[in-house]
Amino acid sequence: MEIDQRAATGQGKGVQHFIRGWGWLKALPGKSTNKAVEVAKSTKKIGQDDPRRVIHSLKVGLALTLVSLLYYWRSLYDGFGVSGMWAVMTVVVVFEFTVGATLSKSLNRGFATFFAGALGVGAQHLACLFGEKGEPIVLGMLVFLLAAVSSFTRFIPRIKARYDYGVLIFILTFSLVSVSGYRIDKILLFAQQRLSTIVVGGATCIIISLSACPVWAGEDLQKLIASNLEKLANYLEGFGGEYCRDAEEKQGVGDSEGDKAALLQGYKSVLNSKNTEESLANFARWEPGHGRFRFRHPWKQYLKIGALARQCAYRIEALNGYINSDIQAPWEFRNKLQGSTLKMSSESSKALKALASAIKTMTDPSTANFHVENSKTAINDLKIALKDTSVETPADLQAILPIASVASTIIEITRCVEKISESVHELSSLAHFQSFEPTVSPEKPHGLLHRGSIKPVLGSGGEHVIITVHPTSTHSLENKILETPKAGQRLDM
Amino acid sequence: MEIDQRAATGQGKGVQHFIRGWGWLKALPGKSTNKAVEVAKSTKKIGQDDPRRVIHSLKVGLALTLVSLLYYWRSLYDGFGVSGMWAVMTVVVVFEFTVGATLSKSLNRGFATFFAGALGVGAQHLACLFGEKGEPIVLGMLVFLLAAVSSFTRFIPRIKARYDYGVLIFILTFSLVSVSGYRIDKILLFAQQRLSTIVVGGATCIIISLSACPVWAGEDLQKLIASNLEKLANYLEGFGGEYCRDAEEKQGVGDSEGDKAALLQGYKSVLNSKNTEESLANFARWEPGHGRFRFRHPWKQYLKIGALARQCAYRIEALNGYINSDIQAPWEFRNKLQGSTLKMSSESSKALKALASAIKTMTDPSTANFHVENSKTAINDLKIALKDTSVETPADLQAILPIASVASTIIEITRCVEKISESVHELSSLAHFQSFEPTVSPEKPHGLLHRGSIKPVLGSGGEHVIITVHPTSTHSLENKILETPKAGQRLDM
Repeated sequence: MEIDQRAATGQGKGVQHFIRGWGWLKALPGKSTNKAVEVAKSTKKIGQDDPRRVIHSLKVGLALTLVSLLYYWRSLYDGFGVSGMWAVMTVVVVFEFTVGATLSKSLNRGFATFFAGALGVGAQHLACLFGEKGEPIVLGMLVFLLAAVSSFTRFIPRIKARYDYGVLIFILTFSLVSVSGYRIDKILLFAQQRLSTIVVGGATCIIISLSACPVWAGEDLQKLIASNLEKLANYLEGFGGEYCRDAEEKQGVGDSEGDKAALLQGYKSVLNSKNTEESLANFARWEPGHGRFRFRHPWKQYLKIGALARQCAYRIEALNGYINSDIQAPWEFRNKLQGSTLKMSSESSKALKALASAIKTMTDPSTANFHVENSKTAINDLKIALKDTSVETPADLQAILPIASVASTIIEITRCVEKISESVHELSSLAHFQSFEPTVSPEKPHGLLHRGSIKPVLGSGGEHVIITVHPTSTHSLENKILETPKAGQRLDM
Repeated sequence: MEIDQRAATGQGKGVQHFIRGWGWLKALPGKSTNKAVEVAKSTKKIGQDDPRRVIHSLKVGLALTLVSLLYYWRSLYDGFGVSGMWAVMTVVVVFEFTVGATLSKSLNRGFATFFAGALGVGAQHLACLFGEKGEPIVLGMLVFLLAAVSSFTRFIPRIKARYDYGVLIFILTFSLVSVSGYRIDKILLFAQQRLSTIVVGGATCIIISLSACPVWAGEDLQKLIASNLEKLANYLEGFGGEYCRDAEEKQGVGDSEGDKAALLQGYKSVLNSKNTEESLANFARWEPGHGRFRFRHPWKQYLKIGALARQCAYRIEALNGYINSDIQAPWEFRNKLQGSTLKMSSESSKALKALASAIKTMTDPSTANFHVENSKTAINDLKIALKDTSVETPADLQAILPIASVASTIIEITRCVEKISESVHELSSLAHFQSFEPTVSPEKPHGLLHRGSIKPVLGSGGEHVIITVHPTSTHSLENKILETPKAGQRLDM
């Protein structure tokens, strides 16, 4: 306080600076405690959000300790720890969160080391032919050529996605071996040592990664796609409530505003999920069969569904823009359109939820068809409602613009959901999802047989639908689960 | 042909398989030639799309050759190539496409090696106190603890984004040093050798990366954001033509369909540019001042503009959906709305182009204000046009739905462009863009002073605007360019 008063009397800038600095210094312990508490809280949240992260960290620690100690003892015995170094390095660099990523890196590292080592030996052999003076020149040229060409291949998208790490290790090993300056016999020993330690390191990672709570990229991809569909469904479900509330209500309740924001956040994450989906699909290709997934599971189809879900999310983003602006349409008009608009959104939401659960449980997605057909009917209803409506004053026309836009956007969303449904049906037949119709011929995996299994008897406004559900489905699902462990044991990559 | 006939007579499946196999074998040379030509073409295209990729590959080759040969000679002299290995490894792993990424990795690697090395020496010292039997146990526990904790920190988004590689090298070095089994004096030699070779490798990368055609992440980010705005502008510009054409015309011309597709592809890349933008911004933070960019350039503001551009792209995506569906509104009604709709889109397009060029040339973006104001006027015009319109038959109401949706969406896009304009003005004052008003006070970098520089005299439909453009602008821009080399020489990171 005393200091503050001195500042108030105005004793120049120096004093003010001093006071500011002093205040900052006094606040420092409190600030840093606060900061530490904050960091601890957010760190705890990261662990709680996905406990597999904690398990992964412990697994890395375990793998590294095992390999380190193995080579600690060996290096004590040999008096030299160079070869052990490669194993430690391999574990640190190769152990990734998902099994697929770990396998991808291990195999890339192993094969790249092998081929580059062989090529490196050849290069040195070739360089030797040019005499003592020519050798470094030839070696330099070879290293330059190979490094430049390999670096360039890393810009090719397909190589970037799958073999980027392999190319890196290829350049590394080739340079190391070719310029090592050893004689050929020593190089072979060196290469053999390095390869064997890399195999030990890689195998440790793969075994630990697979044995204790494995994180499968494929399973994560499946869950991500399903949860993305659910997030869209949640928005469309909540949309009804938002849309019907009046403007005054909207400003009233703070609590439900928070809920609404959470609902919005949900679909927004779908907008930017492309990269995550693609990298998961890339890693999933490396994974052996496990659980209900075979080795050549159609992961690409998940990406297709993901892309359609994003299309749908873009439209929801547009819809969200309209909802936030004030809608002041005449009550009568609004009421007429509201029924079919709400039906479209709620049926689309139900269809998406059914599709998401079909993806999660890997069962036939036919239950969604009913809701898709219902939402199509609602489009027709809307058209009929519009035909009955007359606009009396020009002012009305301006007022109905937002409502009309909401309706058109929902129509677009409904069409998007239809496409998603088709795509999930395709996935279902490609991946041989547990079907409600055991008569599906296994010789035509690409035919969209399930899509014909439900045939609504519809006129322009009809609502009759014929569905046949075979009660054996749960039973055969159990059989499927019992069968799978065999497939899970295959590691024949 | 003969073989085909034999198959036709049906001599069993074996023959058919043989024929298929034979056909495949016969086609193989042709196929592989085609494949090779295809791969060569796509590879050439990758180089042509961005010639800096070719230069980068050559630079990597050069750096690696230099370091390799340096250590080839040294290892011949020493008879041992281990320490040289670290330099080769550093170059391969650290040399990235942009200067920022290379600097980020070099510094991460250098500092992580230093701290982890020091900690490793301490750990071994501590372990020694526990006697010969206790030592491996204590070391193992320490390695486990440090590896587990460090691996977990890699899940924290902020560390993941900036220090991921550093943490990796930290774990690696700590494990290597602490379990190396050497005596302390030998460890110090080992650590010193490793650090010095890493410094040599890193310095080689940084020097080569900076000296020959440097690729600046910051500049790429600036270009990306500007080109994203341009892509949106191109769509809005082309939109008018698309919108006015009748359905018959749409089916008619094949060539223009191709153009249209290219136009569509343009804005679609904006939808998924988030990750690229973020990683470029992350790398840009590591870059020293260069050209017209200072060291602490407000890169975050570019991300803000990028996010708004994506918002705009989502709305364009929705708009694109409406355009592709048939629009059959009554001619008279369509004509009335068309004028202001087209004006909104063309003025928004012009505003975006002006903003993009302001970002690119780092000049005051006030020229966009005129077009933003014009587009706002067009919104009012649309409202007036709607007031004058009467809908005579109920069928009309249904037909005008798509047109109404297009109009609403364009209104949303116009609002989005307004926000982008505000954001670019903010950037302009944060980054001290070359202003048309030399009187701007440098003490208020956060104020949006430029926004007041143009004040349209508008009623609801008025179009009078006062703009003052100082003719000195080009002159002072030249001065700016002449000043900048000094800033570019700063490498004080």
